[in-house]
Amino acid sequence: MIEVESKFRSPGNEKVDKVLTHLGAKKIASIQMEDVYFAHPSKDFGKTDEALRLRKSDGGAELTYKGPRMHSESAKAREEITLKVDNPLSAQRIIERLGFNEFCVIRKKRDSYLLDKLRVDVDDVDGLGEYVELEVLTESPERAEQLLDLARKELGLDKPEKLTYLELMLQKGPASKQKET
Amino acid sequence: MIEVESKFRSPGNEKVDKVLTHLGAKKIASIQMEDVYFAHPSKDFGKTDEALRLRKSDGGAELTYKGPRMHSESAKAREEITLKVDNPLSAQRIIERLGFNEFCVIRKKRDSYLLDKLRVDVDDVDGLGEYVELEVLTESPERAEQLLDLARKELGLDKPEKLTYLELMLQKGPASKQKET
Repeated sequence: MIEVESKFRSPGNEKVDKVLTHLGAKKIASIQMEDVYFAHPSKDFGKTDEALRLRKSDGGAELTYKGPRMHSESAKAREEITLKVDNPLSAQRIIERLGFNEFCVIRKKRDSYLLDKLRVDVDDVDGLGEYVELEVLTESPERAEQLLDLARKELGLDKPEKLTYLELMLQKGPASKQKET
Repeated sequence: MIEVESKFRSPGNEKVDKVLTHLGAKKIASIQMEDVYFAHPSKDFGKTDEALRLRKSDGGAELTYKGPRMHSESAKAREEITLKVDNPLSAQRIIERLGFNEFCVIRKKRDSYLLDKLRVDVDDVDGLGEYVELEVLTESPERAEQLLDLARKELGLDKPEKLTYLELMLQKGPASKQKET
C-alpha cells in the first residue's frame, strides 16, 4: 500500500471545515497530537530522507517509520509502516536505549475528515500555523491524483507546501529545536 | 523495577510441573513462543551485553530491550523494558528499516506458574532441551534472593545455567544461527 499525500497552507481552517461539511465529508476525529522525532548518530535520517516518529495522542500511541519520498507532481509518495504500541513512555525508552535521540517535538490540533477514499487533515500546528493535508491510501497512483485534484479545487488549496512539519520546524532555526537529550 | 531471575537445567519438566502443582502454584499460561533477536552493525549487543528481542506468541507480540546484567550470586539482574505491539510483522519491518538484522530465532514451549511473588517458567526449547526459569520482579533484591533460594530447594534445581538461550544457541555453532537476512 502506498500513501499519496500532499500538504497545503490553509486558506483558513474555519473556511475549510465549512466546505468539507458542505461536501458531506465525515468528521472522524478531533485530537491533540504530540509527534516526537528521533535521530541516530550512525544513520543520518536527513540525508537518507527517512523518519522515525513516535506519535502520542488521546487516541493512544503509535510508532511510524517513513521511507524515502518518491516525488510526483505536487504529491509525495513514500513507504510508511505504523505500529500501535501500548505505552508511549516505554516506547520512547526502548528507542533511546537503541541509540536514537529525540531531536524535535511537534504539537498540533488535528481535525480529520473522510470523503470517499480521501482523508483530509485540518491542522493547527504550534509555531507553524494552519495547514491542510490530503491523503489517499491506494494501489493506484493515477486514481489518487484525480481525487487530490478534485479536493484541491473544492477546498481552495493553491499553496502547496512540499516541506514536512519537521523540515519547516527545523528551518525556523535552532531555537525551535526542542529538548536536546 | 528490577527483574531478578535465574535459570537452571531442568531435573525433568514433568517432575517440576508436579511439584509446582503440589506447592499450590497457579498455572497462568501454556504457550508456544518464537523469539527473534536482532543485531545492529554499529552497536555490538554482544559486547555491550544488551539485547533487542521481538517475541511472537499466541498471546500477541511484544518488543523487549534488555540492558547489561548486574551479576549477583546465581541470579542476574538487568533493566528490562517491554512494549506490547499490535502487529509482529510491522514491528519486525520497522526494526529492520532502522538498520537492525534478525540474527537468531529461538522457539520454545513455555508453561508459566505463579507462586507468591515468584514466577516460574518451565521451558522446552527447540534444540537446547528443558530449563526452568525463576523470576522475581521487585524493588528489593534481598527479598528476591530469599524467594529464589526457597524455590530452588523445593524444585530440586541444582544446575544453574548462567548463559541466556541466545548465548547457548550461538555456542552450538553457526549451524544453529538461523535465517541470515
